[in-house]
Amino acid sequence: MNVTAHLAQFVAGSRWEDVPATVRHESNRTLMNILGAAFGGCRDAAVDHALAVLQPFSGPAEASIIGRSERADVLTAAFVNGASANVLDFCDTHHPTIIHPTAPVAPALLAFAERRRYSGRELLHALLLGIEAECRVGNAVSPWHYAHGWHITSTCGAIGAATAMGKLLGLDAQRMTAAIGLGATQACGLVESLGSMAKSVSVGNAPRNGIVAALLAERGFTAAPDTLEGVRGFTHVMGQAADPSAIVRDLGTVWEATKNAYKPYPCGIVLHPVCAALRGRPARHELRAESVERVSVRGHPLLRQRTDRKRPRSGREAQVSLQHTAAVCLLYGRAGVPEYTDARALEPAVQAFGDRVEVHDDPSLPVEAIAVSLRTADGRTLALEVEHALGSLGRPMTDAQLEAKLRTHAAMNAPAVAADRLIEAVWALDRADDAATVARLAASPAQT
Amino acid sequence: MNVTAHLAQFVAGSRWEDVPATVRHESNRTLMNILGAAFGGCRDAAVDHALAVLQPFSGPAEASIIGRSERADVLTAAFVNGASANVLDFCDTHHPTIIHPTAPVAPALLAFAERRRYSGRELLHALLLGIEAECRVGNAVSPWHYAHGWHITSTCGAIGAATAMGKLLGLDAQRMTAAIGLGATQACGLVESLGSMAKSVSVGNAPRNGIVAALLAERGFTAAPDTLEGVRGFTHVMGQAADPSAIVRDLGTVWEATKNAYKPYPCGIVLHPVCAALRGRPARHELRAESVERVSVRGHPLLRQRTDRKRPRSGREAQVSLQHTAAVCLLYGRAGVPEYTDARALEPAVQAFGDRVEVHDDPSLPVEAIAVSLRTADGRTLALEVEHALGSLGRPMTDAQLEAKLRTHAAMNAPAVAADRLIEAVWALDRADDAATVARLAASPAQT
Repeated sequence: MNVTAHLAQFVAGSRWEDVPATVRHESNRTLMNILGAAFGGCRDAAVDHALAVLQPFSGPAEASIIGRSERADVLTAAFVNGASANVLDFCDTHHPTIIHPTAPVAPALLAFAERRRYSGRELLHALLLGIEAECRVGNAVSPWHYAHGWHITSTCGAIGAATAMGKLLGLDAQRMTAAIGLGATQACGLVESLGSMAKSVSVGNAPRNGIVAALLAERGFTAAPDTLEGVRGFTHVMGQAADPSAIVRDLGTVWEATKNAYKPYPCGIVLHPVCAALRGRPARHELRAESVERVSVRGHPLLRQRTDRKRPRSGREAQVSLQHTAAVCLLYGRAGVPEYTDARALEPAVQAFGDRVEVHDDPSLPVEAIAVSLRTADGRTLALEVEHALGSLGRPMTDAQLEAKLRTHAAMNAPAVAADRLIEAVWALDRADDAATVARLAASPAQT
Repeated sequence: MNVTAHLAQFVAGSRWEDVPATVRHESNRTLMNILGAAFGGCRDAAVDHALAVLQPFSGPAEASIIGRSERADVLTAAFVNGASANVLDFCDTHHPTIIHPTAPVAPALLAFAERRRYSGRELLHALLLGIEAECRVGNAVSPWHYAHGWHITSTCGAIGAATAMGKLLGLDAQRMTAAIGLGATQACGLVESLGSMAKSVSVGNAPRNGIVAALLAERGFTAAPDTLEGVRGFTHVMGQAADPSAIVRDLGTVWEATKNAYKPYPCGIVLHPVCAALRGRPARHELRAESVERVSVRGHPLLRQRTDRKRPRSGREAQVSLQHTAAVCLLYGRAGVPEYTDARALEPAVQAFGDRVEVHDDPSLPVEAIAVSLRTADGRTLALEVEHALGSLGRPMTDAQLEAKLRTHAAMNAPAVAADRLIEAVWALDRADDAATVARLAASPAQT
């Protein structure tokens, strides 16, 4: 069984008409979501630094930077947009693997479509196939790969980006095999880097290197024919007891994009039920946050393991802090981008409130559910339960909510962007002659 | 114990005066050697493709491409020169780890020194420290890392390049820690890719990404403080039972550059004793190759394991074929770059001769030794023994031989290069005000 070649053959041979309509619509939805996430992240210090460092080496300024007025060469734009899209961990989540699949893939396609002309349908089709390859490779090495220390979004992302770019370029199966191999041999990113800016380097490399991989393959650059399944190939080197055959099982029948969910809150996915339970609650229950004496949370053990973190020292740590998240939901009624800054994390009132939050394991609860009990100074107890947090697969964000996410974060960081026109262009992309429209509308117009 | 910070502190604090004179001289020697190797590789198809793919995205053409007249931005030049230097596996070998340490490091420094001005001594010092970091990290994860499937030259090379560039930029210990971490989180390259052009992508990424890592760190980009030794950091994720403390043991006392050897032949290092035994032998013994009926080789078991390969199908396979190597040594009297082309590998006479070569394990022989027995059609038997092949640590190439290697391959692929002036510049580099002289002299003058 030659898994890499089989996957390549599927991708090269796939036709848009073969993709079910609901799956196709996910390509528009995930693009809408990633633009919203990138608008949220595009002013992050990591993005500023990356752009400043790469710009002096940039070639022809053919490509747009989401939410910013600078332009750069295609490779630089892909890197920077990949970093923007994921820097807040506010993008999408493929639930079986916890890959954020779109940030490494879409930026490659968006940037390259400004260099060569493709239809919107070609871009969306390539996006779906890149996500498909990326998440299937992730399935084959999960859960060991991420748990061992690989930043799975970066590693599998490089493969997804190379695959998507191979499809956009129209590579045949043989060259597609090489593109996938050239993506896999560039897979990198350590979990140790999470929580620092270093995360954004491997995420940004994925779309950049995916473009290079596919362009090299297009020219006849060779790679091992079995880079995914070979004895010294990706799944064995970066997996343990990996099952490469999972990569091609039910190809074209089961679509991984249907297991991808979009985040309403820029914090760890396990914290979403907390946001759903507590956001705005005090107002609705005529409860003043100051009168809450104790917040007792029952959740799946992962909630405690990943987020029981008092007094985080930065916005990034706050994104994975139950205490911080409960505090801002109750004190500010929101858990948006402004609630996860360094300043907010260090705010004395937020820190003090977080000290009143405790968490207990309840293995009977699924990850997307939660039970919260609030005790007030005057002796009342308020019980709040959430079965499916918004943004879970059981209760996905609606199209309108994805539009609102884009609009909110564009207004926050790129007010000159014509958000309504951009939203319209994303929904209409499968009928657009020129896929570059989206990237151009997503950039901030240059000051004149 | 914080290994990353300790290493960073050593590198940031190191002074040229602290480096023993013999070690310093190795920096000139390894630079001479890598230029020779790069002249040999600079016209390889992988290099042509890489340059053609990257050139359209190249920014200011500030940097030279070794042996060629094209120029490119610093990052592109670093990538292409890294690929050139290693594509033939004709560079250097750090014996404890089998890292080829200079190809991922020197191209970063050479290219960047054309953008910002540094003295020759600053470049040589940074080169030594990059090699030091790279090989020490390699020691900590060897032998598991390479055996498991990591292309150790690419992976550790990214760390070496980031460290060397950090030193060139003059980073303090804290920013150096970040640079090392940013190098480590970009470490990639699968052994499955060896034998195809894909190898050159991860090798080329190392110097390119090392520059980016150090420049990001210079601007204050953050990384985990323990990216090398942390639980989800490099040595644990990409090693097994790794010993991170080996990275900093005897720092400044034991120098890894003294364990680095230069190759006289562009084939696998374990084949060097074969070349030493058979190259030119027929002439000296008035033996016609055609009259050799059987070549029986006794060597360390690694020789058989890595190179018992009849009728290789390409020049790259021929580089790790005992049969091919013995055949060209006896038929052509040489084992140089022209003896490892695809055409030579497929030559019927070479293939037929290779069929007469057999190999037997002799664990009593060290890797750098060999015993060969030639049986002729007229019944003679000729015994040839080599104790230390040229290019081994026991019998290193002399300075004059390194000069000859540069001269031979410059003449082969870049005849317009002023080889004598370049050789002089390499030996005099520690006294040069402008380190960029070497890179400029190593480029082919543009046609006018």
